[in-house]
Amino acid sequence: MTQQDDQRFPAVEIEDADLVYTLTDEAPMLATHSLLPIVEGFTRAADVSVARADISLAGRIMAAFGHASDDLARLGTLTQSESATIIKLPNISASVPQLKKAIAELQAEGIEVPDYPESPSTDAEREVRAAYDAVKGSAVNPVLREGNSDRRAPIAVKAYARSHPHSMGEWSPQSRTRVAMMSSGDFRHNEASTIVPHDGTVQIRLRPADGSDTVVLRETLPVTAGEVLDATYMSVRELDAFLTEQVAAASAEEVLLSVHLKATMMKVSDPLIFGRAVRAVLPATFSSFGEVLEEADLRPEDGLASILAGLDGLADGERIRASIASELSQGPGIAMVDSDNGITNLHVPSDVIIDASMPAMIRSGGKMWDAQGQMADTLAVIPDSSYAGVYEAVVEDCKANGALDPATMGSVPNVGLMARKAEEYGSHDKTFLVPAAGTVEIVVLDGTGLPAGTVLLSHEVEAGDIWRACQTQDAPVRDWVRLAVTRARASGAPAVFWLDPTRGHDRVLTSLVGAYLTQEDIEDLDIRILDPVAATRLSLERARQGQDTISVTGNVLRDYNTDLFPILELGTSAKMLSVVPLMNGGGLYETGAGGSAPKHVRQLLHDNYLRWDSLGEFLALAEALRHVALVTGKTRAAVMADALDAATTTLLKENRSPGRRLGTIDNRGSHAWLAQYWAAELAAQEADADLAARFAPVATLFQTVGETIQAELAAVQRQTVEIGGYYHPNDELTEAVMRPSATLNAIIDML
Amino acid sequence: MTQQDDQRFPAVEIEDADLVYTLTDEAPMLATHSLLPIVEGFTRAADVSVARADISLAGRIMAAFGHASDDLARLGTLTQSESATIIKLPNISASVPQLKKAIAELQAEGIEVPDYPESPSTDAEREVRAAYDAVKGSAVNPVLREGNSDRRAPIAVKAYARSHPHSMGEWSPQSRTRVAMMSSGDFRHNEASTIVPHDGTVQIRLRPADGSDTVVLRETLPVTAGEVLDATYMSVRELDAFLTEQVAAASAEEVLLSVHLKATMMKVSDPLIFGRAVRAVLPATFSSFGEVLEEADLRPEDGLASILAGLDGLADGERIRASIASELSQGPGIAMVDSDNGITNLHVPSDVIIDASMPAMIRSGGKMWDAQGQMADTLAVIPDSSYAGVYEAVVEDCKANGALDPATMGSVPNVGLMARKAEEYGSHDKTFLVPAAGTVEIVVLDGTGLPAGTVLLSHEVEAGDIWRACQTQDAPVRDWVRLAVTRARASGAPAVFWLDPTRGHDRVLTSLVGAYLTQEDIEDLDIRILDPVAATRLSLERARQGQDTISVTGNVLRDYNTDLFPILELGTSAKMLSVVPLMNGGGLYETGAGGSAPKHVRQLLHDNYLRWDSLGEFLALAEALRHVALVTGKTRAAVMADALDAATTTLLKENRSPGRRLGTIDNRGSHAWLAQYWAAELAAQEADADLAARFAPVATLFQTVGETIQAELAAVQRQTVEIGGYYHPNDELTEAVMRPSATLNAIIDML
Repeated sequence: MTQQDDQRFPAVEIEDADLVYTLTDEAPMLATHSLLPIVEGFTRAADVSVARADISLAGRIMAAFGHASDDLARLGTLTQSESATIIKLPNISASVPQLKKAIAELQAEGIEVPDYPESPSTDAEREVRAAYDAVKGSAVNPVLREGNSDRRAPIAVKAYARSHPHSMGEWSPQSRTRVAMMSSGDFRHNEASTIVPHDGTVQIRLRPADGSDTVVLRETLPVTAGEVLDATYMSVRELDAFLTEQVAAASAEEVLLSVHLKATMMKVSDPLIFGRAVRAVLPATFSSFGEVLEEADLRPEDGLASILAGLDGLADGERIRASIASELSQGPGIAMVDSDNGITNLHVPSDVIIDASMPAMIRSGGKMWDAQGQMADTLAVIPDSSYAGVYEAVVEDCKANGALDPATMGSVPNVGLMARKAEEYGSHDKTFLVPAAGTVEIVVLDGTGLPAGTVLLSHEVEAGDIWRACQTQDAPVRDWVRLAVTRARASGAPAVFWLDPTRGHDRVLTSLVGAYLTQEDIEDLDIRILDPVAATRLSLERARQGQDTISVTGNVLRDYNTDLFPILELGTSAKMLSVVPLMNGGGLYETGAGGSAPKHVRQLLHDNYLRWDSLGEFLALAEALRHVALVTGKTRAAVMADALDAATTTLLKENRSPGRRLGTIDNRGSHAWLAQYWAAELAAQEADADLAARFAPVATLFQTVGETIQAELAAVQRQTVEIGGYYHPNDELTEAVMRPSATLNAIIDML
Repeated sequence: MTQQDDQRFPAVEIEDADLVYTLTDEAPMLATHSLLPIVEGFTRAADVSVARADISLAGRIMAAFGHASDDLARLGTLTQSESATIIKLPNISASVPQLKKAIAELQAEGIEVPDYPESPSTDAEREVRAAYDAVKGSAVNPVLREGNSDRRAPIAVKAYARSHPHSMGEWSPQSRTRVAMMSSGDFRHNEASTIVPHDGTVQIRLRPADGSDTVVLRETLPVTAGEVLDATYMSVRELDAFLTEQVAAASAEEVLLSVHLKATMMKVSDPLIFGRAVRAVLPATFSSFGEVLEEADLRPEDGLASILAGLDGLADGERIRASIASELSQGPGIAMVDSDNGITNLHVPSDVIIDASMPAMIRSGGKMWDAQGQMADTLAVIPDSSYAGVYEAVVEDCKANGALDPATMGSVPNVGLMARKAEEYGSHDKTFLVPAAGTVEIVVLDGTGLPAGTVLLSHEVEAGDIWRACQTQDAPVRDWVRLAVTRARASGAPAVFWLDPTRGHDRVLTSLVGAYLTQEDIEDLDIRILDPVAATRLSLERARQGQDTISVTGNVLRDYNTDLFPILELGTSAKMLSVVPLMNGGGLYETGAGGSAPKHVRQLLHDNYLRWDSLGEFLALAEALRHVALVTGKTRAAVMADALDAATTTLLKENRSPGRRLGTIDNRGSHAWLAQYWAAELAAQEADADLAARFAPVATLFQTVGETIQAELAAVQRQTVEIGGYYHPNDELTEAVMRPSATLNAIIDML
């Protein structure tokens, strides 16, 4: 569905459009085939031009080899424009297997893209490999996220959540659930931070204590003027002692033991910490068989499941299995991910995702599943204390005051530091397992304003410690402060910077916040700086009184808080508005947290039913239209936006979202309802008489044929369909599948 | 000796003079009565005008009550001028007893100054008290030290030291002397630092862990834009463990135990640490009698001498005395301050001055005195590791390479951060003994650019911990970097910033150094940043090769290094040139480290012999004259300076400094020799023919009557004299005493 394929509208170039809508992959891409024609029809009436940008995996591959326009690069350029407005749907962060499948699919279609070179040996192969490396993984977000994050519950969603509160588990003051964190030796306590004076290059190296040759951990790392550079480490000795203590405590307190990390994001550090937890619950096993397991490459950081699966081939396999079973039965109960199948919290590292698991536990009255499939209190082990206090504060608040009430509670929107990879602690290229005792240093190579050889940061470490560096550029920090002020002014809510004076990094940020706040007019605003625990307490206290409090946080708390509070408030984080106000003035509107839902695609092909909920797109579109009005002066776009929000509110109230089971409304049905409500709102509004007159007949038409449209859409369910590809489906086939209502299509075409 | 009293020269106002010479107290003031007329006579020939500024204690008191011009305030204003050149001699930092004596003396002279109000109760008394509070203590340096510190060995002094090397003790590789410092829990390891964004006010408070009311430790503390603000604490628990370990180690290693602190400067923290050391050597005594001693107000931080002296009145006195004696006899030998009188290193806290004691120990081959009056190896305990590594590095270097050789070694001049009380860790108004476990915080009251209530720095502490804050303003740091570059360029030596990447404060400074270095042209210069240990090693390695290395340090290392290296190089730090290049372009030349020598005054009154060595004044005057030439364009002043330096060199070579015992040359005799040599150099120089012609007859005259002058001066010795006051002596009496050579006076008057 490129612009060239679509004959109904003159193609609008990305650079010329008022609004760019991204074509991505899987379910969001399918939904776009239904929704975007409606959007294009409606917005035409407001003289808002819409361009399509293909940033799908297939599109990126084709662009890499000259078979399509490089829309992602064009969007990247566009993010620097003052008037960019971009709606970004979820896309595939391609793994190598996904990449290979997409290549095969394109090749089968006759598009000449080369094979993926596993082990490139020639220059040509290396060039191909480099091109594919640029396509795979998180290739999209770094290009587009030229701004920080503004996430909040849209008014429509919040109103719906209050009138239809989701279920919340009871909290008892007698709950034995608690959070445990390290009191020294962790990333928080060892953190040291500095500001880089000028652009330059540094090196990360280890000077071994035994006097052997310096180990270069990272040859060169570019740094920029004014950037906050920090380093810290997790002491494996203190971590082990802490974990052993927690295993004993969980036994003594007769609660489940659960570990909460983010191995999927902190890709180097958190699997290692996870591995130490596995060791801590199986001390005898690792004492007796640690070397055997290591030789067999059965590593605790891959999880218990991986170890158990690998035992079959080992001579000692059964003895080890017995040892593990024995230790697990004697130790504390381990919280389960899947009680039915005996999958514990320690089976698979990527199952342990703190920002999902902790809110879920809190929503469940502080309980997790035990091996018998019952819910039980748990000792929530979050080794690094940098952010653990936030969860502890929520747990303690719920113990003292009971569960939060979604019907009455206020909101905790987030302004998160994110631009230019700010505070990406998870970055694997700056995190290292320390190979030998010694001193890890960040040393100036050139530039920076400091003499070459100057040691910027230095930590004494032991073998096995986990050392990491982190960069936060200056421009994102400035923009983040400005964004916090903007949101405080726009919302009237207090804006609280969550910054911890006991952390090196946060001290530097606090100083910068002070410097940049004085460049803003904040006289009438309530702006505070609190440590994360105090900020959590304040936010909860206000939320319980129905008051909103903006959390202005760094990147990790952006990730954590935008799940934690939405899950408590709305039951899900997927309904949050996710805006990336671009640093140069543009706006990036992200939709639909939660991935691209491949199983929804399978269901469509099998049942012609698409569960995907486009609520995120509706909300993003309204915000995006307001932004268009702001930057282009096309005030009519703002009228469209208000009407769209009202339509979305009605849609939620009338329960016209996809029903999630066959026979109910699916994605396409909800789009038709949205169009109907939107037209009705536009006809009814008084802000723009011309627009009202223009949409009056449309609204009338929908009233007359609305049921027919829904019937046409319902009729196609329960059949297999074919769209001619997974990564690069055929546009006409897909459009035929996604637009099956002749009546709706006719109305849209008339707009 | 005010200007009005002196009829020989027209009085020059402070504001109009090319050079201002300060009138101070005690020995330096006496010496000035002899030297200054010579200086005024010689400089008149170079058209350099000299003003006198009375900043003596008596002068300050009189000024406070309108009886004299407030010369200190006028000098303070002058420091802001681009062309100020000030020679500052040592003055009395008045204690309350000294202040009262001076008041009494003035009142006896009929000068109407009020009594010192001990407990002011009326507004009038409070006003008087405030006036006296502004006069007492270190009232002078803060007003004048509007710059950083530039200390170096003058060429004449260095040349003399090389040709007349002082004695140095042998160092053996088998020396058991070593330095012990804490590896955690000390000021260094707990240090946290931030940059204050804008001018404002903060508060220092303790939030007790038991939930009781917040304790305000300091109501308000003004902070300035860009200033580096830091806080840290010494854990008394870790300190005690460390000290106990060192007592055991000294016993086991059969070495003396010595503690090295600076209780005189770190007036709050170091006596407390000293007290913990006293406890550590007497654990049984304090376990049994701790409460008794406390009730009797016999505190270990006042030292063993104070406790022993206070035992007489106690019921348990003899038992305690026996307990102390028993523990001292069983423990390690304690290094002695005075073996003859049994005064140990732990007797008097103010005897323990690390910057004097450690260099002395190092000069003595790593040995201190034992109780038997023998020199022995010692365990040098320096609890806080912030700077202990410097001494450790010197000790280890001497063990490996033997004692340094003053005949060949290079110099380690210092550029020290000092302006506007930078890094005054010792400041008693920001250092606190923590009264209860809890959190000490520095919190924004207003300004700073941050919301009121923002916590800038936070430490969890226990009762008994020692917490301290420190301020370092931005302008001094900028000036310090510029000064380092200036000295590197002027000397051709490498300039090494001694900054520790493991310390919060030093990381911030490093970042600022980088920012400010790029504003300088440093292309051809060798500028490095090294941690203090590496910097010490480099400096020693180069010194052993005869090479100079500028140490660019913070305020504490300024204090330590300007004793350590000079004592090794020159045998004393008193001969160092001490320049304070004022931040606005002026120059402050400080003379004669080592106080104002009250015992020299007693000797003058008793024997008419003044031991005071004016070498510091000679050296400072030459530098000051060069500065006058620079800022006024009076190039003849530079010729005077070169001649003066040459004269000083001759004076040292010919051994014409005060002999320090009756019958030899005293201060006045050395002045006469200086005048004679200076005149000879001026007559001989070829840079300024007019000047040479002007001084030719003077030189001739001195050659003729030099012996007469010395005889006249020698003749007055061995009699009591009267100068009509101590703090405010009579000018005419003093001048008569200090200028007893009619021949010399006649030559000077003819100039």
